[in-house]
Amino acid sequence: MRGRLITLEGGEGAGKSTLLRGLEAHLRERGVDLVVTREPGGTVVGEAVRGVVLDAANNELCAESELLLMFASRAQLVRQVIDPALAAGRWVLCDRFTDASYAYQGGGRGQPVERIAELERWAAHGLKPDVTLLLDLPVSTGRARAAGRGEADRIEVEGDAFFERVREAYRERASADPARFRVLDASAAPADVLDQAIAGVAGLFAEASS
Amino acid sequence: MRGRLITLEGGEGAGKSTLLRGLEAHLRERGVDLVVTREPGGTVVGEAVRGVVLDAANNELCAESELLLMFASRAQLVRQVIDPALAAGRWVLCDRFTDASYAYQGGGRGQPVERIAELERWAAHGLKPDVTLLLDLPVSTGRARAAGRGEADRIEVEGDAFFERVREAYRERASADPARFRVLDASAAPADVLDQAIAGVAGLFAEASS
Ligand SMILES: Nc1ncnc2c1ncn2[C@@H]1O[C@H](COP(=O)(O)OP(=O)(O)OP(=O)(O)O)[C@@H](O)[C@H]1O
Ligand SMILES: Nc1ncnc2c1ncn2[C@@H]1O[C@H](COP(=O)(O)OP(=O)(O)OP(=O)(O)O)[C@@H](O)[C@H]1O
Ligand SMILES: [Mg+2]
Ligand SMILES: [Mg+2]
Repeated sequence: MRGRLITLEGGEGAGKSTLLRGLEAHLRERGVDLVVTREPGGTVVGEAVRGVVLDAANNELCAESELLLMFASRAQLVRQVIDPALAAGRWVLCDRFTDASYAYQGGGRGQPVERIAELERWAAHGLKPDVTLLLDLPVSTGRARAAGRGEADRIEVEGDAFFERVREAYRERASADPARFRVLDASAAPADVLDQAIAGVAGLFAEASS
Repeated sequence: MRGRLITLEGGEGAGKSTLLRGLEAHLRERGVDLVVTREPGGTVVGEAVRGVVLDAANNELCAESELLLMFASRAQLVRQVIDPALAAGRWVLCDRFTDASYAYQGGGRGQPVERIAELERWAAHGLKPDVTLLLDLPVSTGRARAAGRGEADRIEVEGDAFFERVREAYRERASADPARFRVLDASAAPADVLDQAIAGVAGLFAEASS
């Protein structure tokens, strides 16, 4: 049976990486054969892309190039990691996926939605997660959390208006596809966010055993 | 007055980098204010892309990702280097440009022409060289030359059939746009190839002074 794809989305400091660890432990305890990965990253191209995109010194990077790099990473991750895992019946838990391009390169940087949708079609061959957990919280709360981690990367140096557009784009996508999205209150304590996430993916087990 | 864009194209070992040095010297002697660059490369993204694309260890790189990386490099090069130079009236001499994507990612790897054309439109905003010098020669001659340079990169390890498709795609593009392309006999001696190239770009001076 085909596996399941679960993606975690949200702004800076929303708690995606923190939740990922808790959710990974939960899924493994329930016996899920799991692959954990992230974007950009997870492959040779992906990690190179991550270096270029996050490098604060690369402040001339244009929006078009950023978008193309994200999809270069994604095209490779889909073909080399996600597709084979799903085909083998494994589940995949991914820290960010295509929704992040709609939110950051689209909402944040103003790249047209149709351009992103077209890349999604052929580069990611339209792969949709089974469940997307959107960690939603006020921009200021997320930024305060992220600031605690030390030096800001190339994206973290953007102003609040940029991150407000990112948040809004994420929320619009969630509204437009409620069957796939679970909007979590990410301002809650970590244990609470994990409980919300566990409830959000519970339906996947029912489907998998039916 | 707007500058001029001259690109050098051709298969492996055709003599592009060799010709570039000779042509650069010729243009500077004639008083041209020149910017010399290459693809992929020329910017932070471009050099990172070059590393990923040429790394022989990265043999899982998929065709879609390769295409996206090439255009990520190109989008940045156009905005950061080529456009500003042309706008300032400078001439640009570039070792490979968009035609290489049609030849390698299109002809070589089978990526659809419409996909490449669409990327050319928005990522390279349709920028066409004023003159493209296509260094044409039998695949075997070029490969024998390139082999003299030591270890093969990720593209050089492809078989002859791949490079025959690349050559054919280049020649088709040249036939389709004879006003822009000059097809040079690259099997000739270096000094002869340089003479052909000088003749090929001579018309640009007439236009520039008119
Ligand atoms: N629910 C929470 N409540 C309070 N602090 C949290 C919570 N979740 C995570 N944090 C803390 O906030 C900071 C950012 O968390 P994390 O790295 O998980 O966020 P992220 O969404 O992965 O960020 P990025 O987008 O930068 O990768 C960390 O210091 C983490 O310990
Ligand atoms: N016209 C020529 N006749 C004979 N040898 C040549 C000629 N031009 C270049 N060479 C030699 O062929 C080899 C490849 O030349 P060069 O590096 O210029 O090719 P290239 O087209 O830039 O290759 P690549 O596509 O790998 O960058 C070099 O060793 C160079 O000295
Ligand atoms: Mg994180
Ligand atoms: Mg060369």
